[in-house]
Amino acid sequence: MPNPTAAMLVIGDEILSGRTRDANMNHLAKELTSHGIALTEVRVVSDDAEAITKAVQALSAAYDHVFTSGGIGPTHDDITAENVARAFDRPISVRDDARAALQSHYDRQGLELNEARLRMARIPDGATLIDNPISAAPGFLIENVYVMAGVPSIFNAMLAGVLPTLTGGAPVLSQSLQVFRGEGDIAGPLGDLAARYPDLSIGSYPFQRDGVFGAQIVVRGQDGAQVDAAMAELNRTFPA
Amino acid sequence: MPNPTAAMLVIGDEILSGRTRDANMNHLAKELTSHGIALTEVRVVSDDAEAITKAVQALSAAYDHVFTSGGIGPTHDDITAENVARAFDRPISVRDDARAALQSHYDRQGLELNEARLRMARIPDGATLIDNPISAAPGFLIENVYVMAGVPSIFNAMLAGVLPTLTGGAPVLSQSLQVFRGEGDIAGPLGDLAARYPDLSIGSYPFQRDGVFGAQIVVRGQDGAQVDAAMAELNRTFPA
Repeated sequence: MPNPTAAMLVIGDEILSGRTRDANMNHLAKELTSHGIALTEVRVVSDDAEAITKAVQALSAAYDHVFTSGGIGPTHDDITAENVARAFDRPISVRDDARAALQSHYDRQGLELNEARLRMARIPDGATLIDNPISAAPGFLIENVYVMAGVPSIFNAMLAGVLPTLTGGAPVLSQSLQVFRGEGDIAGPLGDLAARYPDLSIGSYPFQRDGVFGAQIVVRGQDGAQVDAAMAELNRTFPA
Repeated sequence: MPNPTAAMLVIGDEILSGRTRDANMNHLAKELTSHGIALTEVRVVSDDAEAITKAVQALSAAYDHVFTSGGIGPTHDDITAENVARAFDRPISVRDDARAALQSHYDRQGLELNEARLRMARIPDGATLIDNPISAAPGFLIENVYVMAGVPSIFNAMLAGVLPTLTGGAPVLSQSLQVFRGEGDIAGPLGDLAARYPDLSIGSYPFQRDGVFGAQIVVRGQDGAQVDAAMAELNRTFPA
């Protein structure tokens, strides 16, 4: 059975202007891979209502799971929650359990749960809360879309809570070999090998280090014996 | 007049598996921003023919410019060129000027222009070559799509050649203020300010440093006087 598929939607002008370097994509990719879920597409859109709604609808329809990152804070440019709700035509309003989580968090800090902070308790009807152990403001799951924070420490904490609830496929095994020859030299035999192992994904990633050309060859697949066999052939074809 | 828009398409299994951290998105975002072109969407797809073709078609139709990164090397998993050609229903074949560039590059290195390397001279009919000053294998421009390498040093070099040919809009000016208060405290006045300056983009980016919560407030816009006026108000509202 093929592994479940996932997509990610990163929301934020700051990524697209280059001011901020996204860190959540690589973390999510690694975590999903080791959980046997295939991250198949990522989109980055700006803080724009239409862009968010359309991307959520497209990705939700195309993949088993969707993870969003960003836009769920208290300020005017945080518009993810209402537009995910809109994508599924659901009302959104302040929910008691979310408000209670925020209230006790701010009480502990001696801060007021003001109108802006209360925006973070707005949850679409029928959603399930995602725990935020760091700053209390929850994420949520609606349909197959996990709506999570953009701040990396909070994104990671939310994901750590969500992952055990997902059914992964067989973990994808990966082995690699570094070859200090140009890709053009190894491409022929490598293509032949890839053709003989159609169930494996064999990738070649070129690098240049201190003026020397090389490639990292990565063999990935679910069948450990096949991965081992392909690696043995690779080692014979490209001896160190 | 609104600034031209752009999208980026990153192609590569290695990004989606988490093995490689994409570096080209942030570089492109910064370069386009300073050139007055609005990077509006980014997609990352795997080395999959259908995924590449559909993404190229969707992004090419929606934005003024599209930049792709990755998948134009000599190995079997480099399938970007033929699928961009397919997206526009154009034949693709080895082109003389591309072959000549590769031939003289490999001659200088005493390497053979073998069948695998020759794949990098396949160019869709009617495309314009994009110079690769590092490893000779050219990128190309077809319709409004700039097809470029995934290796960051080569991507950057190709982009440096392409950017001067693009007509940018007015550069987007940006100023920022760091406020050492939680976002929930500043959200109210910040939202009011944003409403009074509809032509500016005012973003709030929370951080947590040594246990202190704060936010970087970024004011962006094309009218320097407006940006200055908003920043002056910000400084009065949130004195250091």
